Amino acid sequence: MKIVVDAMGGDNGSPAVVEAVINYLKKHDDLEITVVGKKEELTALEGMCEIVDARDVVPMEAGALEVMRLKDSSMYKAVNMVKSGEYSAVVSCGSTGGFLSTATLLLKNIEGVKRSALVVPFPTKIKGKKVVLLDVGANNENSPEELLQFGTIGKLYSRYVYNVEKPNVYLMSNGAEEGKGSPVVKQAYKLYQDAKFEGFKGNIEARYALVSDADVIVMDGFTGNVFLKGTEGTAKFMGGLIKAAFKRNIFSKIGYLLTRKGVKEMSDTMDYKSTGGAMLLGVNGVVVKAHGSSDAWCFENAIRVAHTLASADIVNKIKEGLKSE
Amino acid sequence: MKIVVDAMGGDNGSPAVVEAVINYLKKHDDLEITVVGKKEELTALEGMCEIVDARDVVPMEAGALEVMRLKDSSMYKAVNMVKSGEYSAVVSCGSTGGFLSTATLLLKNIEGVKRSALVVPFPTKIKGKKVVLLDVGANNENSPEELLQFGTIGKLYSRYVYNVEKPNVYLMSNGAEEGKGSPVVKQAYKLYQDAKFEGFKGNIEARYALVSDADVIVMDGFTGNVFLKGTEGTAKFMGGLIKAAFKRNIFSKIGYLLTRKGVKEMSDTMDYKSTGGAMLLGVNGVVVKAHGSSDAWCFENAIRVAHTLASADIVNKIKEGLKSE
Repeated sequence: MKIVVDAMGGDNGSPAVVEAVINYLKKHDDLEITVVGKKEELTALEGMCEIVDARDVVPMEAGALEVMRLKDSSMYKAVNMVKSGEYSAVVSCGSTGGFLSTATLLLKNIEGVKRSALVVPFPTKIKGKKVVLLDVGANNENSPEELLQFGTIGKLYSRYVYNVEKPNVYLMSNGAEEGKGSPVVKQAYKLYQDAKFEGFKGNIEARYALVSDADVIVMDGFTGNVFLKGTEGTAKFMGGLIKAAFKRNIFSKIGYLLTRKGVKEMSDTMDYKSTGGAMLLGVNGVVVKAHGSSDAWCFENAIRVAHTLASADIVNKIKEGLKSE
Repeated sequence: MKIVVDAMGGDNGSPAVVEAVINYLKKHDDLEITVVGKKEELTALEGMCEIVDARDVVPMEAGALEVMRLKDSSMYKAVNMVKSGEYSAVVSCGSTGGFLSTATLLLKNIEGVKRSALVVPFPTKIKGKKVVLLDVGANNENSPEELLQFGTIGKLYSRYVYNVEKPNVYLMSNGAEEGKGSPVVKQAYKLYQDAKFEGFKGNIEARYALVSDADVIVMDGFTGNVFLKGTEGTAKFMGGLIKAAFKRNIFSKIGYLLTRKGVKEMSDTMDYKSTGGAMLLGVNGVVVKAHGSSDAWCFENAIRVAHTLASADIVNKIKEGLKSE
């Protein structure tokens, strides 16, 4: 199995990516990684993996058009190598918009896929259980038909990546009862019913997203982006409040020393870095977007996600799954 | 100044409301409260405030039609008393849908208001500073024109209730740059620009909602509901993780004893109970919805909010403000 890594464009530059690749390869001998970027920044990788030189770096705010013009950029080259079929997956921590739209343009949607979706697995109250949220930002709006298809894609992801045999699928809405929702959600609800969609459990409110029996929660990309970032912001905000609480005085500082292991476990649970990144599902290839601010540990997790998805053969699973639905 | 309180329909029944009214009246002699409900449950209030008997209780899941039929319900009677003009505000912890739609039907929108909006003030990183979010759930969808008007309503709220002279107004979006957003948000952005809306600062991402210079953040009711409840759910989820962290062992329990004051401050900051409730802005009267699970302290805060809004004469401020925009 071979995957390609874009080494450039992240906030921490290529050193974080180089360190991540070295660490990952030390632990896994069933994977070949090709790294694309300025070769003079990748010398530490020589002898360990293939290096492809690329002279341009896609700027953080670049859109699709700009990336498509930058044919000697690490991002364009990396995505294009997946298109050739030789590589199963691509990982980048560069411009989100540029990366996702370049991947969509170059790799094209899987036959039958109306829109690809950005997927993020979220922690839940149940230890080890993740809930798959999609779309969290690949689209600015989605039709009811697209929301129906996201249900199928999410279900396949939950089944083949998390081994949930019969995933519970919900629609994110402003109330749990049937009949709640935006006009699009109401129509999507009806489509799920008409399709007798296996595992469809109805609407779910955002407050129960992390504490329910949901394996998959479907929403349009705009709502999903607000939910994802709202949750991230709240977690960070509360993290700051906790720190302040521990810094109050010498006694509370001692208290911190006594509880820090538990506090660390909590931070890890809520830390997006441990999830490794978001995946664009629905295109012909495994596309993993690591956070722009990825450090080596975070990027290593993103490589792990790409490796897992490629091993699960998720692209073919979606292809077959959509045909049989 | 007179306000009316619906004593029925909350998860904790009338005793919580009775206790809240008694506590509030002890501290404030510039307010008269009339309480509506089953009079045999309100005997503790005799001699302290006016009691209006109402034999019916609106069920928690009741919609507008059901409340409009239940003319002898405490909720219908309470809202109707504001309609008469004798009362400035109404507070209820009963059915959200029933209460908001009954208030809209009976009190009618302020002249010129396209849609009323549910408003919740959110805590921010800056101590004491609140950010006004609207709409967080009165509507299932909103037009760009409605999003523009929400900006005006939110600005007036921030100015007259929080004394922010020049409130910063943002549109919630999936990216900060101009051009980001759902189709509705993009159009609303243009309307704000065309109107040369004073204090309009552009788009804001959900992750910065609690840590920015925003005084007002405008969004449609569906998105707002997902944001509000997602934040609430995350805060609760993290609260649970913190508790678990402190319960790990005897040392961490000692740690808790040493830090609990700080932890309590944090919980209070994130606790919706301390904000007292959500307000329906845009109708002819102050309408405050306390949480269904309100205890006495929470309901007392809701009364305080109603008292503050009525004192700020917010209904007339919105009326005048919309004329001059």
